[in-house]
Amino acid sequence: MEQIFKKIALVGKHNSTDINGNMLRLAEFLRRRDHEVVLSTHGGELCHLTDWPCAPLKDIAGQVDLAIVMGGDGTMLNIARALVDHRVPMIGVNQGRLGFLADVSVDTMFCTLEEMLAGDHVAEERIMLTCALERDGDLLFHTYAFNDAVVSKSTLGRLIEFEVYIDNKFVYSQRADGLVVASPTGSTAYALSAGGPILHPTLEAFVLAPICPHTLSARPIAINSRSEVEVNLIHADDARVHFDGQTHRDMKVGDRVIIQRARNTVRLLQPSGHNYYDTLRQKLHWGEKL
Amino acid sequence: MEQIFKKIALVGKHNSTDINGNMLRLAEFLRRRDHEVVLSTHGGELCHLTDWPCAPLKDIAGQVDLAIVMGGDGTMLNIARALVDHRVPMIGVNQGRLGFLADVSVDTMFCTLEEMLAGDHVAEERIMLTCALERDGDLLFHTYAFNDAVVSKSTLGRLIEFEVYIDNKFVYSQRADGLVVASPTGSTAYALSAGGPILHPTLEAFVLAPICPHTLSARPIAINSRSEVEVNLIHADDARVHFDGQTHRDMKVGDRVIIQRARNTVRLLQPSGHNYYDTLRQKLHWGEKL
Amino acid sequence: MEQIFKKIALVGKHNSTDINGNMLRLAEFLRRRDHEVVLSTHGGELCHLTDWPCAPLKDIAGQVDLAIVMGGDGTMLNIARALVDHRVPMIGVNQGRLGFLADVSVDTMFCTLEEMLAGDHVAEERIMLTCALERDGDLLFHTYAFNDAVVSKSTLGRLIEFEVYIDNKFVYSQRADGLVVASPTGSTAYALSAGGPILHPTLEAFVLAPICPHTLSARPIAINSRSEVEVNLIHADDARVHFDGQTHRDMKVGDRVIIQRARNTVRLLQPSGHNYYDTLRQKLHWGEKL
Amino acid sequence: MEQIFKKIALVGKHNSTDINGNMLRLAEFLRRRDHEVVLSTHGGELCHLTDWPCAPLKDIAGQVDLAIVMGGDGTMLNIARALVDHRVPMIGVNQGRLGFLADVSVDTMFCTLEEMLAGDHVAEERIMLTCALERDGDLLFHTYAFNDAVVSKSTLGRLIEFEVYIDNKFVYSQRADGLVVASPTGSTAYALSAGGPILHPTLEAFVLAPICPHTLSARPIAINSRSEVEVNLIHADDARVHFDGQTHRDMKVGDRVIIQRARNTVRLLQPSGHNYYDTLRQKLHWGEKL
Repeated sequence: MEQIFKKIALVGKHNSTDINGNMLRLAEFLRRRDHEVVLSTHGGELCHLTDWPCAPLKDIAGQVDLAIVMGGDGTMLNIARALVDHRVPMIGVNQGRLGFLADVSVDTMFCTLEEMLAGDHVAEERIMLTCALERDGDLLFHTYAFNDAVVSKSTLGRLIEFEVYIDNKFVYSQRADGLVVASPTGSTAYALSAGGPILHPTLEAFVLAPICPHTLSARPIAINSRSEVEVNLIHADDARVHFDGQTHRDMKVGDRVIIQRARNTVRLLQPSGHNYYDTLRQKLHWGEKL
Repeated sequence: MEQIFKKIALVGKHNSTDINGNMLRLAEFLRRRDHEVVLSTHGGELCHLTDWPCAPLKDIAGQVDLAIVMGGDGTMLNIARALVDHRVPMIGVNQGRLGFLADVSVDTMFCTLEEMLAGDHVAEERIMLTCALERDGDLLFHTYAFNDAVVSKSTLGRLIEFEVYIDNKFVYSQRADGLVVASPTGSTAYALSAGGPILHPTLEAFVLAPICPHTLSARPIAINSRSEVEVNLIHADDARVHFDGQTHRDMKVGDRVIIQRARNTVRLLQPSGHNYYDTLRQKLHWGEKL
Repeated sequence: MEQIFKKIALVGKHNSTDINGNMLRLAEFLRRRDHEVVLSTHGGELCHLTDWPCAPLKDIAGQVDLAIVMGGDGTMLNIARALVDHRVPMIGVNQGRLGFLADVSVDTMFCTLEEMLAGDHVAEERIMLTCALERDGDLLFHTYAFNDAVVSKSTLGRLIEFEVYIDNKFVYSQRADGLVVASPTGSTAYALSAGGPILHPTLEAFVLAPICPHTLSARPIAINSRSEVEVNLIHADDARVHFDGQTHRDMKVGDRVIIQRARNTVRLLQPSGHNYYDTLRQKLHWGEKL
Repeated sequence: MEQIFKKIALVGKHNSTDINGNMLRLAEFLRRRDHEVVLSTHGGELCHLTDWPCAPLKDIAGQVDLAIVMGGDGTMLNIARALVDHRVPMIGVNQGRLGFLADVSVDTMFCTLEEMLAGDHVAEERIMLTCALERDGDLLFHTYAFNDAVVSKSTLGRLIEFEVYIDNKFVYSQRADGLVVASPTGSTAYALSAGGPILHPTLEAFVLAPICPHTLSARPIAINSRSEVEVNLIHADDARVHFDGQTHRDMKVGDRVIIQRARNTVRLLQPSGHNYYDTLRQKLHWGEKL
């Protein structure tokens, strides 16, 4: 049987035995359907557990046609950053709790995946952020962020002052706990808690949502994802920039965080009946039909 | 002298003598620079005041190369709806208070317009909404809206219940005072008071912002402007739909309001140094550089 | 058997046959326990349905020791205003959906009421608002409001301008859809939808919550209930003041609405295990223990 | 001349030479009016600068009839905690920027203070919080807080989970960046940035305002200041509790922060024409009369 996705990476979370059992069953299932299967974790930690071909994700990212990720949205963020430059499509299998990104349930994964692998899926192209931290004109750090880059106060818990420029135009200076710059994917994560709007995944936009701003008239703004955002730290006892809530770097006064849209998008495959608004309603406890 | 904008409509607000004085001075200024000038109001009311060529806007919209509108943002909304199908670019001259749309000051209009008419301007393409009110499958009313369509409670002041569908997918049902569906242009108007985000004018998006929603987890959402929004009135003692806050229609239970992006955009000309964020800061009293 | 509550008014909603069946069963239950029972509706409409003593509420309010109200929170508001000057304690029996005021379930009312009538209850004293509408120095209308007085735009749907004074001190002028002035009881009703905080019922406070304010820095404020609030209509095409969402009066520019705390409080009896925070969590869908 | 305030402590900020010059002029002014004057800083640091009687605040707090504090609201918080148990009234002299607490301007202080010291003032009694941090049943730390106690995430920047109990009744569990528990005085500080309401200083209330809550239906609640608030840390990578943004302690999972109203209030003296709403309008940039 000729397959669309010949070689598939099965990616799990480090040290999660629940996932591992499901991974091995899924690997077996895929092999029976003539897919070539490689197991992986982000760092390759579980390779000793199994006789299956197994490799760190970075070593195989360029060779696979699809990644099936077992875990929650946090795992998906992590894997998406690793795969984006290889343009490998992803499917997320959640371990019981519906995710915004991992929306195939482990309970029904065999029948859902059978349909999806046969071509019955929809592909979403999601914006990835590329973020740079600069000090005195030097690049200190560079990373992708799928959800958000967050400049915020750090250990001491005192508010920080920063300026925002968009496409080199001054936007505002602000005293606040911080600022979230989020992709549409990240708009339902931390940005939402900070009072930001939901951005539909197809919007080519970023949202800037201040965290506990001192100025009462501050409001979230959604801008074009072709724009470049610069956050310039003006005053702070200490401050940090967080990326996807998974890595961070300390910032000094004068440091600049530059956020742009990455060249490549994340390709997210979803069951063909997938309805973003259904997920919103379930996750956010919005009202059903009256 | 060959002009880019050969024939220019000078449009004022009905019965505004302040504006009329400025209009006549501006007409003279334009004629001296070899532009052909026609005066107009939306309905043609001031034609008796002057010896200048004068006509209702609808009669000349197809014949002019540019409209210069004297008034505030409210007048601009009105004129934009009248001009959008003729693709006539617009310049807004505010009468003292900076507008989001009317951002040439009457105080400096001669020098600013001289530069703009010579080609030193930027052109923005702004999304227009096209809105239909349907009852029992019949089209009751159709109109453009540049800012927003607002379904809301009416005279009795009791909350209404409605369902929202986007691209025929059920989004949510809600009990609220109403719902604002706004263009990026309208995002800084009523939608902002209702808690919606600011959408940069270049975003191809609508924002849906509930007004005083009964469900505490309701949040504004920005969606793709290629989508079709349907608001279906489920229960209400009385309800209305407002367009740009300038016209409205009564609604009955079962009525549907359909909102889409109009085929044509509004072409807004602005001075070449124009900075949207400067306008935001001034209008919303955001902080300057610290 | 000597009873604390010798004579009890059983109050139902007009024309509600569901309630009437429960009312007659409850009347029988109370008579067996040696309470004297009078049936009533707000206007006395169901007196022809039964052989029980029956009278309009206003005629018996001064003679009973307790009112048991069958209905939802809306009915409780209505009855509370009628009883407050007679200091008659109230118990609310909800018809299936938990209310903030009507928190005895009809499903368990016999055992719950047996305990409560035997003295096993807690009594809450709730603040009532007394509201006056004045024009040119004349009193146009006076009423109680248990939840809130709301000055708002009316039919035309355009924002209104008003000034607020507290204890004759100027607080702010505002352009908005309106202003909610609520008691702690009303803080979980319309004021909450407008963005106001929850006020615990024991707080001797009012909350002022603007509705869709034009000024982005507007915020809700809670003030001492000994204060007098004046809302002065400065500019409006049309405007209204609503009381408990149940009655309203049209307002003209220059009209003043004066809101104070009523001399008497509403006495609300609740089961002794009653926990306000449990009700909040259930009604507002707040998280349970993790 | 017999004075109401015989002995006055003049309290300045450590190492602030601007303040010191004004302090000495003010000391001279007071001595000429037959007040006994003692200079102080919180720690007594500036005693070497002058020949005036000078002592650490803690040594003289029990002996003075009034404290005049030169500095901003931050200094006032600090001094208020030191004075509250001695019931010494305070006057705050701001150094140029109007404060909520320091509302006498240094520019007009001589004439304003002359009137106030002669009895022409109003005295406000402000609620102080008393806060305890408990671990395994032991008291780890105890302090006053005039503005607020804030349980929040710490260095790692990940959200924390906590439970709130009021008077030993379970209120809610929440995943959030943190929780602000503020006095009316603190309601215009950090709690306001977090979305809390303004509480008039005379309200006997606390406000609980969640910071970036994960649950979208979370709302601020104002409760009676006779209540005891307990915040129980359920899950966190790391967390802290901050008091007035000036001191903090690290928290471990299982730690409890207990917040109550202190027995004594802060006595704040203000010029007799003082209008709290004027200060609100100026500080929050609310609209003036239209």
